[in-house]
Amino acid sequence: MTAVPGPASTDQHADLDVVGMGNALVDVLAAVPDRVLSDLSLARGSMELVDLRRAERIYEAVGPAVEVSGGSAANTVAGVAALGGTSGFIGKVADDDMGTVFVHDMRASGVELHAAIARAEAGEAELRGTGRSLVLVTADAERTMATHLGVSATLGPADVHEELVARAAILYLEGYLWDRPSAKEAMRRAVQIAHGNDCSVALSLSDSFCVDRHRNDFLALVLNDVDVLFANEEELLRLFGARSLDDALSSAGDTGVLVAATLGPRGSVVVGGRDPVEVPAAPASEIVDKTGAGDMYASGFLYGLTHGHDPVDCARLGSLCAAEVIGHLGARPQHDLVGMARVEGLA
Amino acid sequence: MTAVPGPASTDQHADLDVVGMGNALVDVLAAVPDRVLSDLSLARGSMELVDLRRAERIYEAVGPAVEVSGGSAANTVAGVAALGGTSGFIGKVADDDMGTVFVHDMRASGVELHAAIARAEAGEAELRGTGRSLVLVTADAERTMATHLGVSATLGPADVHEELVARAAILYLEGYLWDRPSAKEAMRRAVQIAHGNDCSVALSLSDSFCVDRHRNDFLALVLNDVDVLFANEEELLRLFGARSLDDALSSAGDTGVLVAATLGPRGSVVVGGRDPVEVPAAPASEIVDKTGAGDMYASGFLYGLTHGHDPVDCARLGSLCAAEVIGHLGARPQHDLVGMARVEGLA
Repeated sequence: MTAVPGPASTDQHADLDVVGMGNALVDVLAAVPDRVLSDLSLARGSMELVDLRRAERIYEAVGPAVEVSGGSAANTVAGVAALGGTSGFIGKVADDDMGTVFVHDMRASGVELHAAIARAEAGEAELRGTGRSLVLVTADAERTMATHLGVSATLGPADVHEELVARAAILYLEGYLWDRPSAKEAMRRAVQIAHGNDCSVALSLSDSFCVDRHRNDFLALVLNDVDVLFANEEELLRLFGARSLDDALSSAGDTGVLVAATLGPRGSVVVGGRDPVEVPAAPASEIVDKTGAGDMYASGFLYGLTHGHDPVDCARLGSLCAAEVIGHLGARPQHDLVGMARVEGLA
Repeated sequence: MTAVPGPASTDQHADLDVVGMGNALVDVLAAVPDRVLSDLSLARGSMELVDLRRAERIYEAVGPAVEVSGGSAANTVAGVAALGGTSGFIGKVADDDMGTVFVHDMRASGVELHAAIARAEAGEAELRGTGRSLVLVTADAERTMATHLGVSATLGPADVHEELVARAAILYLEGYLWDRPSAKEAMRRAVQIAHGNDCSVALSLSDSFCVDRHRNDFLALVLNDVDVLFANEEELLRLFGARSLDDALSSAGDTGVLVAATLGPRGSVVVGGRDPVEVPAAPASEIVDKTGAGDMYASGFLYGLTHGHDPVDCARLGSLCAAEVIGHLGARPQHDLVGMARVEGLA
């Protein structure tokens, strides 16, 4: 089992619990009937990268929407801040309305932000504008995403703010970054800085199709560079080419990495250094929109890790945060997470 | 009592139930503690017009926000469409992200839109960009608004689409328009077109401070040009300089106009041609955010008027729509209004 990082405040070098790097996106959330997914050839529950034209076509096909700041790693570090932790974020937006929204919401959440702000009109149309994710929410509360990265697709090694990464107890990366060559290089650069600064590295596998696209790279990353891995069941099966969850968990255990596998309503399993431990899901009063469930699970888990909780309590805190976020529209917390954690003895 | 217009579909000239004209705004909704209102010198429950600098200062002072299309008359016509009615809207946005959001949401709601789309960078900074309303929601679900009109402040008579107004059974105007000279002229022009096309005119008084600013103009409008008037208790008291609701309702009765006065949790009162009739509020399961309650009341009332309901049933339908919108964040309906109306025998 990997060395579990201590709280940032008691750490010698770190004054930030978690620094995340990922796509800086604004979510455009719309409730849709099931048939819209098939009409648009979107795979339920997945994230598909789309070009500008397809993004516009999908936007035209959905009803009135709500805009909320999103982005996987961005959600996670906002959640860490909502829990009372300290966090930072590295990403890239344009100087347009959506960029303003993203920057405001991160800062207002208490996240230290190093967002490169690119000129809105610079470059080819595909790479212009703040990225946005069209989030189609069906009646079963499942979210299916079509993401146009815009300027976020140009995130590269030069955007990695070395000092910010060096100040983190944990560097948190979203697997989605691996889809773009320059962002992949940015990830490698950030990992290098982390390794040179006694900073742990956490990775979220993000999406099962994303794992399919980059299986060997992700396996190498996990074995060589990662201390904490987040994945859902499907992502874990794909990563290890396993036929059953037990097989996948066994392979996960062999890596020596601390692995937190989320299983939806069945809770999560923590693997690392000992036999897998199952942690039940926190009760959710209502399930409105699953967007951000995995991201907020990671918030709770990483906050716990940096505040001296054992991995099982980290998973409990993660489940609590996930239960909050699926109770409303949007992937950022809206209720008092610190109070909720306190009730459970996890604050 | 005024002649109540029939349904648009059976009317000789009208193929749209309601055409609204108002400020095209995107709401930026943030939950705030009470002290933020006093810190920012904002009057609870009111709408204040703010310049760009003050808008930015308020935005900086609030936490993470959610963006949802808004604008008083825009909400109302979107609500009419959600009830299965036909509606149109006249307003002005810029070609920026928020303008795209506003246009998308109106069209996706089924509203026929004639929004003049101004170049985002044209003109002085104050008049640039799509208008937005910072909506501060306190724990009591009250909303306090600071609105930067942006390009919406340039709405003028030339933007009034004559053919669209002429196709309406009812022209619906928000009192907020009276705050800007050019928008006031646009209102006068729209009223003139309505009068020339056998189209009724409905006015919402919008805000008690707005009534204070324009009391004599509004009185003259009501007496000379308006067939249906929407106001809350405070607005009605200010308009008629009355000391009690009974006095205000008596003055309202004297105008001969059909008046719907909303009284919050106490429901509403309908005046016109006979003694005031009280209509209780529809039960709301939870009150989350009062933004749009008056706008959606007007949706139900106007849909009712154009579909052969008597004024009391119009008020019942208005209350039903208001109860839906206060149950969630944002001023546009999110649930099946037609189904809800059907249950009450009002569809």
